Amino acid sequence: MKATRAVQQILANYEGEPPGVKAQLCRMLMTGKLGGTGKMIILPVDQGFEHGPARSFAPNPEAYDPHYHYKLAIDAGLNAYAAPLGMLEAGADTFAGQIPTILKVNSANSLMPDDQSKNQAITASVDDALRIGASAIGFTIYPGSSSGLEMFEEIKEMRREAQAKGVATVIWSYPRGESLDKDGETAIDIAAYAAQIAALLGAHVIKIKLSTDYLSLPEAKKVYESEGIDVSSQAARVRHCVQSAFNGRRIMVFSGGSKKGSDAVYDDARAIRDGGGNGSIIGRNSFQRSRADAMEMLGKLMDIYRGKA
Amino acid sequence: MKATRAVQQILANYEGEPPGVKAQLCRMLMTGKLGGTGKMIILPVDQGFEHGPARSFAPNPEAYDPHYHYKLAIDAGLNAYAAPLGMLEAGADTFAGQIPTILKVNSANSLMPDDQSKNQAITASVDDALRIGASAIGFTIYPGSSSGLEMFEEIKEMRREAQAKGVATVIWSYPRGESLDKDGETAIDIAAYAAQIAALLGAHVIKIKLSTDYLSLPEAKKVYESEGIDVSSQAARVRHCVQSAFNGRRIMVFSGGSKKGSDAVYDDARAIRDGGGNGSIIGRNSFQRSRADAMEMLGKLMDIYRGKA
Amino acid sequence: MKATRAVQQILANYEGEPPGVKAQLCRMLMTGKLGGTGKMIILPVDQGFEHGPARSFAPNPEAYDPHYHYKLAIDAGLNAYAAPLGMLEAGADTFAGQIPTILKVNSANSLMPDDQSKNQAITASVDDALRIGASAIGFTIYPGSSSGLEMFEEIKEMRREAQAKGVATVIWSYPRGESLDKDGETAIDIAAYAAQIAALLGAHVIKIKLSTDYLSLPEAKKVYESEGIDVSSQAARVRHCVQSAFNGRRIMVFSGGSKKGSDAVYDDARAIRDGGGNGSIIGRNSFQRSRADAMEMLGKLMDIYRGKA
Amino acid sequence: MKATRAVQQILANYEGEPPGVKAQLCRMLMTGKLGGTGKMIILPVDQGFEHGPARSFAPNPEAYDPHYHYKLAIDAGLNAYAAPLGMLEAGADTFAGQIPTILKVNSANSLMPDDQSKNQAITASVDDALRIGASAIGFTIYPGSSSGLEMFEEIKEMRREAQAKGVATVIWSYPRGESLDKDGETAIDIAAYAAQIAALLGAHVIKIKLSTDYLSLPEAKKVYESEGIDVSSQAARVRHCVQSAFNGRRIMVFSGGSKKGSDAVYDDARAIRDGGGNGSIIGRNSFQRSRADAMEMLGKLMDIYRGKA
Amino acid sequence: MKATRAVQQILANYEGEPPGVKAQLCRMLMTGKLGGTGKMIILPVDQGFEHGPARSFAPNPEAYDPHYHYKLAIDAGLNAYAAPLGMLEAGADTFAGQIPTILKVNSANSLMPDDQSKNQAITASVDDALRIGASAIGFTIYPGSSSGLEMFEEIKEMRREAQAKGVATVIWSYPRGESLDKDGETAIDIAAYAAQIAALLGAHVIKIKLSTDYLSLPEAKKVYESEGIDVSSQAARVRHCVQSAFNGRRIMVFSGGSKKGSDAVYDDARAIRDGGGNGSIIGRNSFQRSRADAMEMLGKLMDIYRGKA
Repeated sequence: MKATRAVQQILANYEGEPPGVKAQLCRMLMTGKLGGTGKMIILPVDQGFEHGPARSFAPNPEAYDPHYHYKLAIDAGLNAYAAPLGMLEAGADTFAGQIPTILKVNSANSLMPDDQSKNQAITASVDDALRIGASAIGFTIYPGSSSGLEMFEEIKEMRREAQAKGVATVIWSYPRGESLDKDGETAIDIAAYAAQIAALLGAHVIKIKLSTDYLSLPEAKKVYESEGIDVSSQAARVRHCVQSAFNGRRIMVFSGGSKKGSDAVYDDARAIRDGGGNGSIIGRNSFQRSRADAMEMLGKLMDIYRGKA
Repeated sequence: MKATRAVQQILANYEGEPPGVKAQLCRMLMTGKLGGTGKMIILPVDQGFEHGPARSFAPNPEAYDPHYHYKLAIDAGLNAYAAPLGMLEAGADTFAGQIPTILKVNSANSLMPDDQSKNQAITASVDDALRIGASAIGFTIYPGSSSGLEMFEEIKEMRREAQAKGVATVIWSYPRGESLDKDGETAIDIAAYAAQIAALLGAHVIKIKLSTDYLSLPEAKKVYESEGIDVSSQAARVRHCVQSAFNGRRIMVFSGGSKKGSDAVYDDARAIRDGGGNGSIIGRNSFQRSRADAMEMLGKLMDIYRGKA
Repeated sequence: MKATRAVQQILANYEGEPPGVKAQLCRMLMTGKLGGTGKMIILPVDQGFEHGPARSFAPNPEAYDPHYHYKLAIDAGLNAYAAPLGMLEAGADTFAGQIPTILKVNSANSLMPDDQSKNQAITASVDDALRIGASAIGFTIYPGSSSGLEMFEEIKEMRREAQAKGVATVIWSYPRGESLDKDGETAIDIAAYAAQIAALLGAHVIKIKLSTDYLSLPEAKKVYESEGIDVSSQAARVRHCVQSAFNGRRIMVFSGGSKKGSDAVYDDARAIRDGGGNGSIIGRNSFQRSRADAMEMLGKLMDIYRGKA
Repeated sequence: MKATRAVQQILANYEGEPPGVKAQLCRMLMTGKLGGTGKMIILPVDQGFEHGPARSFAPNPEAYDPHYHYKLAIDAGLNAYAAPLGMLEAGADTFAGQIPTILKVNSANSLMPDDQSKNQAITASVDDALRIGASAIGFTIYPGSSSGLEMFEEIKEMRREAQAKGVATVIWSYPRGESLDKDGETAIDIAAYAAQIAALLGAHVIKIKLSTDYLSLPEAKKVYESEGIDVSSQAARVRHCVQSAFNGRRIMVFSGGSKKGSDAVYDDARAIRDGGGNGSIIGRNSFQRSRADAMEMLGKLMDIYRGKA
Repeated sequence: MKATRAVQQILANYEGEPPGVKAQLCRMLMTGKLGGTGKMIILPVDQGFEHGPARSFAPNPEAYDPHYHYKLAIDAGLNAYAAPLGMLEAGADTFAGQIPTILKVNSANSLMPDDQSKNQAITASVDDALRIGASAIGFTIYPGSSSGLEMFEEIKEMRREAQAKGVATVIWSYPRGESLDKDGETAIDIAAYAAQIAALLGAHVIKIKLSTDYLSLPEAKKVYESEGIDVSSQAARVRHCVQSAFNGRRIMVFSGGSKKGSDAVYDDARAIRDGGGNGSIIGRNSFQRSRADAMEMLGKLMDIYRGKA
């Protein structure tokens, strides 16, 4: 399938990358109902690890079954499906080649002692990605944690291996840790910094959270105010984050967070679209709804990204 | 020996696995008096490491001898025998090919300082498993320990190697550590979470403990109550744990714990059976009884799993 | 292009090095408007990592784009451009062969908890440098930090690999850490010590900060006073640092620090030149100005190093 | 030399081992005046590392010379000589093939800070053992130390390598550390536990200390009392330890401890013999005596093990 | 050049070593004005790393230049020159083959936080030694430090590699750390222990400090007194240290410490000679004097070792 001009323009920004990696990015960008638009919706299902099975799947018990998510992502026409190793393996053969997958290679959990440094365990390898035919690895970093430097070194090494083997790298850049208060985790200056770090680490796709207009770091606050950086609206903040990732040269998607009303989800998507973001990575807001509701919502979101809603 | 339909259905769930791993699972499922039923009873003997020799074997001194356990497992018609390296090696040649073995590759002990992070030492390798002809490696994780992430990374690596070499992986998922009180270790929400983590880490066989109806994590408790998850009986809790491991796509066995009356052991087995679990892993309740008593009990348990008691 | 006598004299000091490394040093010394003079100006852009994107680039928003810095370095006729992996990759193909690049292989950030040992994460490898055609790796050490020994061991290993693969090594030697107060970080005795350590670690190019006449270590202070070492002027301090790096046998460049008035920048350069330093590594003072202003300043600096201003 | 029936019976217990390892065990069992009896006396000289040279050798200054110990072991007709790398190397050529040697591959020392976790440094490798023609590696573990798990992992790895290369493994299992008081280090329940752990880790020869009738672990004490395990005499305690190491399937030798009267040494040996132990590992009690006295004592000990005294 | 009988006798003690290592020892022993006598003087220049450049070289500024030390060692007719990697590389080509060099592969510095465990960074490798044609690696251990075990493991590994590649190993055994007070660092019992540890670790050449008659360890003090070990004179203490290193089977040189009057330096050398030591390793006392004074002093020292002064 010939890549559209929009996709070719995006790929041109990955000038340093081997063809194998570009092919994976192309595949994700050309798949599903948003295929060819340069926009993406990704289904991530790592909440079972992060929050446990009941909190994740009891609201929609079909979702206990790994096949459910493959089917949802395929039937809704999403661009990719991301999950930890066991989850992907459990459907890797049945759905082989039907949807690009992102192997989430590290994971945290809610059983860790509170006073432990914020960190994740590496639970899969690049070779696992190859074996199950995944298009990309997904890795979470926690800028702000005392484990931050170590996590950067881990993804540096995995990204190098992935790149050499023609696998793309998606970085979940989630500020968290001792040096940040709760407001800081979603402050716009921190979010933009998180995007920058992911880009500098060589992420091909950057996933960050939507942010607030709070400014957390005193030294940064001064500059935001003196330079008059617009952080007044969600769209403006998205734009600033996109700018902070090599001036838009990197694909950036935003996560939706915990389950909320559908209008709020749509508003988020419009802000992402208007700010120049590439799309949404939307987990609990899809799989914790019934399949019918999720299909409807995902369809609507795709309309928004196509500028039709 | 042709695999039964029940076994074939189970194996079909391991769709991402190489034939070598499936062959090992098939071998364990087709061995012994429960062979072909999809149910399993496994004899584990790692108490010598965990509690010391006298506490483990003095009640039935024949059990000091490694050969005793091989014979017990074979003569009782169990599916597999699990033990640390030295223990398996001491009978590996005499009993070669007569019973599938599971090499327990990490172990804790009762001499560790109390204030140390809950952890185990890796005491054997995948190549050791190959050398002594073991069907699987067995690895304990402690979700809830400050060493938890490290243990996940260890089994991730060993599981990858085992898989590539045609050896199956059994995970003992035992919540333990700083973030859990004693009730939490056997709480149903924690047990289900432990099952989920083992599945996500790629366990082929998951071993957890039977649980209580206590709900430990406040965030989880809310969901259990709002969604009305049935945790009122042991069978219901088994069912919830099985559901939490990919909706039944993974073999799950339950451990019996310390020695107790035989009726209690039988009740446990009926709950496991009725809840859809695959079987029991039963150590002290077999080898701390006399051989005759153990044979009788194991026979009765197999009757239960075959629905005859 | 035939190396000038000045450059050949410098290269002769690297007598233990393989031709591949000398070729890279020669390339950097022969590039740009200072090419052949033995003097160098390098553009470093790692502030996005160190301070975040807004603090680094908002004063001159074109600088959010990685291509901007390549162009600035090329058009201004600098000797080399240094940046982290993601930043260099984003223009590595477009500007391939047009300017020597230095891959900054470790980075710190402003989100790290304050009480953490001063350290950086390794974020790129020697093979990354080869892949993107970089002439050198750049590595920061923090003498004085409790992580200092570890950082020395890291660069020892990377330097060995780089040398074997024909890649030069630039060491940013920045005293920092528990044993130094703020004045100590720029004290002349510490700066000279930092230069000596970098040289002993095998740096081909040493980057240190300009220093003050403060003497920090009591044992050193005694010697400076008894031996009458001249540290009264910036030029004298530069001279002492150059002497401290194998009596001038190693290329030494000085960093400019935070943005300041252009006259101060010029004065620094004159002191470096008069003290026998090889040049400036000048980041914020160039890319935080408008392109026109930066071009003018860089031109003036090159005049100074050529002895014309 | 044809192995005696006694030796063949011992070797038959090592059923999982490659011929190379069995050959080394056979060689040690067939050497010296006890050759063929299934009993062993080993000369260990690691006190120079543990206690320093003067405390070890000043009482008999000839013992400063590494050749002294080789000669003593050969002339007395012992089964093997064990020492750290430097010590063995210093006579490895002169005495090549004249006595089986055990390369002690880890060592502690008396200069370590008191508050440091009880541990040893690995000071030699399996390849060193091959190079100098040693029959076995010797490794000390400290069950009860916070470094215990780490030490188990170290010997697990070295034992695996040694086994693959035809080198036997001797484990010194010495309970020590934060969780044990001084009485606990020699308590019979702890000693039996130490023997069990060494056996589970795959030791071919287990070295433990003689124990007292103290019971240290409350949970174990209950079992010893309820099951009526006989720990009243040294011979009974030896018997229990032998039982705890796979019911006698592993060679077990006992260390003599600090220098004491010869009658006490003989009494110990009789208890070891009567309890079914395989012999003594006797250092300070031999090399801190004059050569003549040591020869006499060792001769007497061998008479005891042969049942002649 | 045929080795003298004195040198052949020394080499015969290295019976376990490959010819490549013996050849390096022979080369060092046969070089310079003491060549063939079995005595050695080595020039070590690692003070730039340990104390910084000004404290090391300002008293004799020519010494800032790495070539100065090569020339001094060659012109004075010393046996070998020891320095860190950068220092040796800076003259490795010019002086190739003119003097045996010892690559100091680990280094400490005076900028480390005081409360940090006493340790050094590994700053060069065995392959670096091969590349620059060094005869030996030099490694410092700190018995008594909480990092001691780790340092022993490091040199164990490097020594093994060096030995296999025909490079000799020199160990600087310097007691230091939490368990030692200032007097303890130079106590005779500690010095002898340090010599013993270096020998056991496989050092080919042992470098220790001259000691005092203080006895630091209570357990050792008892033995020194009861056995009447003579520690009353420097020569007696040297003799005891030589005895403690395999009864004289290892080359032992003594360091001179900080700069002092020349008569004190000569007295030290006489004590070393009379006690049976092999020589001096003399840094600050040579390069902190003018070249003329240093040449005179070194000449006089060689006369002393030849028994002519």
